[in-house]
Amino acid sequence: MYSQPVSKLNDAAIKLLEGKNLLYIGTINRDGTPQITPVWVDTDGTHVLVNTAIGRVKQKNVTRDPRVTLAINTPTDFYDVGLIRGRVVEQVTGPQADKHIDKLAKKHIGKDVYPWRNEKEKRVILKILPERVLSK
Amino acid sequence: MYSQPVSKLNDAAIKLLEGKNLLYIGTINRDGTPQITPVWVDTDGTHVLVNTAIGRVKQKNVTRDPRVTLAINTPTDFYDVGLIRGRVVEQVTGPQADKHIDKLAKKHIGKDVYPWRNEKEKRVILKILPERVLSK
Repeated sequence: MYSQPVSKLNDAAIKLLEGKNLLYIGTINRDGTPQITPVWVDTDGTHVLVNTAIGRVKQKNVTRDPRVTLAINTPTDFYDVGLIRGRVVEQVTGPQADKHIDKLAKKHIGKDVYPWRNEKEKRVILKILPERVLSK
Repeated sequence: MYSQPVSKLNDAAIKLLEGKNLLYIGTINRDGTPQITPVWVDTDGTHVLVNTAIGRVKQKNVTRDPRVTLAINTPTDFYDVGLIRGRVVEQVTGPQADKHIDKLAKKHIGKDVYPWRNEKEKRVILKILPERVLSK
């Protein structure tokens, strides 16, 4: 079912990441347990891009330990699953992160502007560099 | 969107677990990173039941550290997500585990008998007792 794992995003993984799919991101809680959160997802072809807010548990987790595990599948083929391990190599805040959450809202729910914006929160892009990619 | 977390499976979580949905199970690798695997799922109303084989990474992980994090959603409503933390309180092997994988095959792919059975592998049911359940 799966080909050998590779260290970079391949076409199958990019297709999953570009699609209207939820990504499950696994980070490491302070007590060592995994935190798993479903998130919207994007890619620049090299990194997996996740948009969250400063102070959320997963953002605090990756600041403490950047290693993440990602799982993504598509609703039309439940067995087309991509599994990615990597690490957060950069966190981008500011206008770029604000624009990016609008881009994700457009992709995932068809809205030009992210509708749940909270002015108190500071958006942040987690740039994840894959180290091991397993997909069909 | 979510109600307050509860410590037992509630109706919303049971509905997700009984449905034809994939569960993402997060376990703790030896190096502290999360392992996330999509698996078939079942429940007895109290525990989440996952069927795997002795020696698989997730089975070795939960034998070393029984704490798991689970995420489940349905393909028809991507935002109907259940998040469960708990621990593996029992591992059941033998005829019960063999019957159980057939039950899961019936539910998930409509086959009376699990078609990928490997006679060398020993099936095992991971009985997971929830401690924190977050669902709609």
